Amino acid sequence: MEYINFIPDNDYLLLTPGPLSTSKSVRAALLKDLCTWDDDYKNLVQDVRLRLKELLLANDKDDIYTSVLMQGSGTFVVESVIGSVVSKNDKLLVLANGVYGERMYKIASMLGLNVSQYNVGERGEFDEVELIRYLKEDPAISHVAVVHCETTTGALNNISQISEIVKRQFGKTFIVDAMSSLGGIEIDISVLGIDFIISSANKCIQGIPGFGFVLAQKQQLEKCKGQSKSLSLDLYAQWVAMEVEDPGKWRFTSPTHAVRAFHQALVELDDEGGVKARELRYRENHSILIEGMTKLGFKTLVPTNSQSPIITTFLYPENRQFDFKAFYDKIKDKQFVIYPGKVTNLETFRIGNIGHVFPKDMERLIKVVENSLIS
Amino acid sequence: MEYINFIPDNDYLLLTPGPLSTSKSVRAALLKDLCTWDDDYKNLVQDVRLRLKELLLANDKDDIYTSVLMQGSGTFVVESVIGSVVSKNDKLLVLANGVYGERMYKIASMLGLNVSQYNVGERGEFDEVELIRYLKEDPAISHVAVVHCETTTGALNNISQISEIVKRQFGKTFIVDAMSSLGGIEIDISVLGIDFIISSANKCIQGIPGFGFVLAQKQQLEKCKGQSKSLSLDLYAQWVAMEVEDPGKWRFTSPTHAVRAFHQALVELDDEGGVKARELRYRENHSILIEGMTKLGFKTLVPTNSQSPIITTFLYPENRQFDFKAFYDKIKDKQFVIYPGKVTNLETFRIGNIGHVFPKDMERLIKVVENSLIS
Repeated sequence: MEYINFIPDNDYLLLTPGPLSTSKSVRAALLKDLCTWDDDYKNLVQDVRLRLKELLLANDKDDIYTSVLMQGSGTFVVESVIGSVVSKNDKLLVLANGVYGERMYKIASMLGLNVSQYNVGERGEFDEVELIRYLKEDPAISHVAVVHCETTTGALNNISQISEIVKRQFGKTFIVDAMSSLGGIEIDISVLGIDFIISSANKCIQGIPGFGFVLAQKQQLEKCKGQSKSLSLDLYAQWVAMEVEDPGKWRFTSPTHAVRAFHQALVELDDEGGVKARELRYRENHSILIEGMTKLGFKTLVPTNSQSPIITTFLYPENRQFDFKAFYDKIKDKQFVIYPGKVTNLETFRIGNIGHVFPKDMERLIKVVENSLIS
Repeated sequence: MEYINFIPDNDYLLLTPGPLSTSKSVRAALLKDLCTWDDDYKNLVQDVRLRLKELLLANDKDDIYTSVLMQGSGTFVVESVIGSVVSKNDKLLVLANGVYGERMYKIASMLGLNVSQYNVGERGEFDEVELIRYLKEDPAISHVAVVHCETTTGALNNISQISEIVKRQFGKTFIVDAMSSLGGIEIDISVLGIDFIISSANKCIQGIPGFGFVLAQKQQLEKCKGQSKSLSLDLYAQWVAMEVEDPGKWRFTSPTHAVRAFHQALVELDDEGGVKARELRYRENHSILIEGMTKLGFKTLVPTNSQSPIITTFLYPENRQFDFKAFYDKIKDKQFVIYPGKVTNLETFRIGNIGHVFPKDMERLIKVVENSLIS
């Protein structure tokens, strides 16, 4: 792309839960208008789906997984899974420790599905014994859903441990909302036996917002025919359209520019060395953030052992006056955008470290934070 | 934007029902990553909503309308209106003469709503007497929905006439799917008394795909609280979030790049002279298309009096062998992408004339079509 040098710099780096900062080459890929019916575009869509499998499902030797792309924000994609996968004869147990877990419970409730929740609160962790008790006491539970990285707090839930109980011990259908972790943290989807895992174009794969995707076990997806009460959010129909009926063609108008950028983002994820290499970069970003902020006297909300390398919640400092808006503006003035907190009853703010963000950026951020506290 | 000269040319011009060809300056607006929580973005969203009102609701002197933006394709937005506006105590009558009318019926049916349809078939027109009979015979009908430009065929339904009956005579709630016409054909929304009118970012306003919008009477929207069974597609909650709770902030991650491009597209619609001027351009495009194709022996499906200036369905020529795929490829080779037909039992194809498309483009198209028939 010879015009790449002319792509403008962003006004600031986004250190948020997403949408994130993207590379100039990802943004350059936005510049063409494509026709949803033409082979140029359908081939691009199929290549996106192939690359998702190659990059995220390398251990799926038996080819039991497939991918489905879905328009809208991450919440739309989560709703498409819950509304298409959980039938009226099923019962969903949601494990919640933050806004995004609670949102899955709300989605299922609004849809009139049978749903219960094991809610440990924003600062809680799921207990194995308690989870087993839930599943034993209510054999009607057929599906279990959990958020991997709960960006409300920045906590990373232990999906290996949960999968061991949900899949191996109880054989339930397991749904994982990995919105802000998939592509940035290695997840061995097929080994864990996850049935449906959900993410978005504009998180760790570093595309722009506009759609999300689901990696699903084909056999499980095939059971979903006719279950959705929503035409738009029917995951099964969406899959059949792009997989079988007209490969690469979405049922309804797709965000062609966002898809082209996502394709470029997948190429760049591969070039970086895949998920393993990206995770290392994110972990390095995160270490610099934590060390630097700790030195400056900030404390994290989440204990180290459950802290994700994705986004971190910091408590307002105790020993000084702290005006978040003034702090935000000072930092934005130095080309960094951070994010307000989302936990209840505690004064917090959040800093993300995913996207087209590098250790040198985090080092500069720490200096900027330091200066903002002095001036 | 000094980098505008470096925006690449498209590989071809899209003469389709959408997504459409956009201007280079609209595509240039895609190049910045924005933060959904930051004032820079929220102010942009509010300016988009203001411009929608100024450009499309100039006659709304009493300020009774508002706008809501919604993620996803046009179908998602239509579903958000039907699912949020029609309660379980209501009954919807859908007027259908093509795929998009039938889709509204399907959406309502899948949602379990009370719905009936007055379906005149793909080549039919709605009859006043018959519509009155429907409304008289079934007083349970509370809402009526119709597609303005039915892109299945290219027919333009007479919403003035329908509104006269639905609103003035019967006082029903009137929903118009103006996906492919709003912004490209003057519609006096407030005079017609339309309650909800729906369109998409990537049709006549000439943005890119990723979201759509609804112009709604505030009083009608206020009645929709708690009616949606979908969290994602709750039109009322979406409105309250961006209008009241945190002005300019969408409930869930919004397609920031598409929104920035849409803002630029609205500026350009204004610069062109508003909807009136754009309609003139589209009508000129369309005249050149029809005259040229007629001279080359092609016949249109829809009679002249109900043909839209948006998209036209042509019958395969009778007097020669006609291979649409070969025809398509030859034309694409000359940088034009057209579209297959969608009517049943007839061999047709479609050519759109909206988007960043000008009379000189249509003149060149006619020459390309002519040459493709010779060679």
